[in-house]
Amino acid sequence: MLASSAILAGVAVSGAAQAQDIDFTIAVSIPAATHGWTGGVVYHAERAEAEIEAAYPNVDVIVSTASSATAQVSALEDLTATQDLDALVILPFTSEELTGPVAQVADGGTFITVVDRGLTDPAIQDLYVAGDNIAVGANTATWLAEQLGGEGQIVVLRGIPTVIDDERIEGFTQVIDETNIEILDIQYANWNQDEAFTLMQDYLARYPNIDAVWANDDDMLLGVLEAVDQAGRDDVRFALGGNGMKQVIEMVQAGDERTPISTPYPPSMIASAMYMTLAQFTGQAPMRGSFLLDAPLITPENADQFYFPDSPF
Amino acid sequence: MLASSAILAGVAVSGAAQAQDIDFTIAVSIPAATHGWTGGVVYHAERAEAEIEAAYPNVDVIVSTASSATAQVSALEDLTATQDLDALVILPFTSEELTGPVAQVADGGTFITVVDRGLTDPAIQDLYVAGDNIAVGANTATWLAEQLGGEGQIVVLRGIPTVIDDERIEGFTQVIDETNIEILDIQYANWNQDEAFTLMQDYLARYPNIDAVWANDDDMLLGVLEAVDQAGRDDVRFALGGNGMKQVIEMVQAGDERTPISTPYPPSMIASAMYMTLAQFTGQAPMRGSFLLDAPLITPENADQFYFPDSPF
Repeated sequence: MLASSAILAGVAVSGAAQAQDIDFTIAVSIPAATHGWTGGVVYHAERAEAEIEAAYPNVDVIVSTASSATAQVSALEDLTATQDLDALVILPFTSEELTGPVAQVADGGTFITVVDRGLTDPAIQDLYVAGDNIAVGANTATWLAEQLGGEGQIVVLRGIPTVIDDERIEGFTQVIDETNIEILDIQYANWNQDEAFTLMQDYLARYPNIDAVWANDDDMLLGVLEAVDQAGRDDVRFALGGNGMKQVIEMVQAGDERTPISTPYPPSMIASAMYMTLAQFTGQAPMRGSFLLDAPLITPENADQFYFPDSPF
Repeated sequence: MLASSAILAGVAVSGAAQAQDIDFTIAVSIPAATHGWTGGVVYHAERAEAEIEAAYPNVDVIVSTASSATAQVSALEDLTATQDLDALVILPFTSEELTGPVAQVADGGTFITVVDRGLTDPAIQDLYVAGDNIAVGANTATWLAEQLGGEGQIVVLRGIPTVIDDERIEGFTQVIDETNIEILDIQYANWNQDEAFTLMQDYLARYPNIDAVWANDDDMLLGVLEAVDQAGRDDVRFALGGNGMKQVIEMVQAGDERTPISTPYPPSMIASAMYMTLAQFTGQAPMRGSFLLDAPLITPENADQFYFPDSPF
C-alpha cells in the first residue's frame, strides 16, 4: 500500500515539486468569521498557509476555525487526537475556556503561540503576539486632542468587556484626562456594527453637541457613521475608529474630513504569528518571547502600506 | 552579456530551481566575530541567509560584517550606494555612531530592523528584536538566591558599559537586594575572557570566602572558571554566566555542579530578526513592533533545545 501510494504520488507531481515527507506540522486554531475582524483573521491565516506550504514543502499547516469557545476546545481535541503537532498557533475565543485545553496541548511538547487574546496563565505560551491596545487608544487620543485644540465634547463606544477593550479605553482616557475635553458618555456596543448604530442614535438624541466620537473599532465606526448621517448632524467633526479596516483605510486614502485617520490592529497579525512560529522550526531562530505590534497612525501619506485590496477586512 | 549569462544560468540549474528575478533585497549589517557572541551572530546570519535564499529564490540576502563602528558606517554607505534595499537588519556596533547613518537609510524608504543594541532614537526603527536583559539577571539571581538559601557572599563581573549591561545588573541586584546575600564587589571586565580572568584573580586574592560568582556572560565565565581552578578554591560553590554559549550548555548538559544553569541571550536572535523582516515582504504579515525574547533558565532538562552543535558559540 505505502509503496504504491509513493509511486502514484511520484507520477502526479511535476519536476519542480517532488513529493516530500512532512517534517513539521503547525496547527492554527482561530475563531470563524463572526465579524469583520475575524473574517480578516481567517483570510490572512489561509493565505499564509498557502504561502508557507509553497515555500516549505516539508511543512504542513492546518487551519481550523471554530464558531464558539466550546467548538474551539473540540477542535483542539480533534487536532491533537489525529496528529502529532509541532506547534499550535491559537487565537483563543475566550481566555478562560481555552486555558486548560491549551495547557494540555503544551504538556504534550507542542510549541504554543498565543495571538491577541491572552490565556489566563501566560506561562503556558512559548510565544505571544499581540497588538498594542494602549497605543491604539493613546495615539488616537493624542491626534484628536490636537485637532480639537484640547477642548470640546466627545462620546466613546466600548467593545466587548475584555482586557483588549480595557486597554484601549485606558490608553485613550489617560490622554484625554490631561486636556479640557469632556467625555459626555461611554457605553458598550460589543464591537458590533448594529449595536454601535443604536448606541450612537441614543447619544445623538441625548447630546445636542458632539464634537467627536471615538468608536474604538472600525466595525463599530461604520454603525456610528450611519447614525450620524441619518441624523444629518454636522456638529460631529471627527468620527474615529481603529483596527485599519479596509473600508476605513479607503476613507483615509480619499482624504475624508470626518475620518482622516485610523490605527492598525491588523487581523493579519495571525500571519505574523504563523511566520514567527515557522522560523522556530525551519531555522535556528529562537522565537520564544513576546511580539508587540506597533499602532502607528494610518494617514493619507502611509495608508497604502496598511491596505490589502484582496482582504475582506 | 546579460543574455548569455542567463543561458549559462539556465544550463547550470536543475529543473526544480528556475533562475528568478530578485523581488526583495535584505541587507544584514553585523559586527565581525570580535568575541564568542558576535562569532555566533555571524554564523547564524550566514546560515539564515542560505536558508532564506533556498526557500525564497526571489529574495536576495546580503550579509555584511564590520570590525568597528566606523567600518559599519562605511559598509552602510556601500550597501545603499550600489543597490536599492527593501530592508536593513542591523546589529549596531554602537548606538551613538550608527543612529545618524541608519536614519539616512530609513529616509530612503528602507524598512529598518534593529537587533540587540538600540539606536539613540527608537523612532527610526520599524522592528526591534532584543533579548530580555532584565530577565537574564533576575532569573539567574532568583535561582542563585534559592540555592544559597538567601545568604552568602558573592562577587559580580560587569561587561562593557552599555544599556544591556546596566539592565542585566539591575535585574540581578533587584532580586539579590531582597535577600541577605552580600555582593562583595562588582567591577567591569568588558565581556572579555582575559579581563575576566584577571579580575577574578584579584577577587580571589582579596576575598577569602566567595560562595558564588556571577559573570553576567559566558565568555567572561570561562575566564572566571580558569582563575578559580588555578587558585584551587573550593569555596566557590556556583559560577554562573549567561548567554547560552555552547561550551557552557555542554557543562549544563553534563550536570556540572558549579555551573548547572545558564540563561539564553542567543546570538541566533539575528536569525529571528531576519525571518521576521522576511515575513514583512514575502507575506502580508505586519512586522512593525518590538520582539522581546524570553530568558528562561537553561537546565539539564531543556539544554538540548538551546544547543546548536554546528555553531561556534
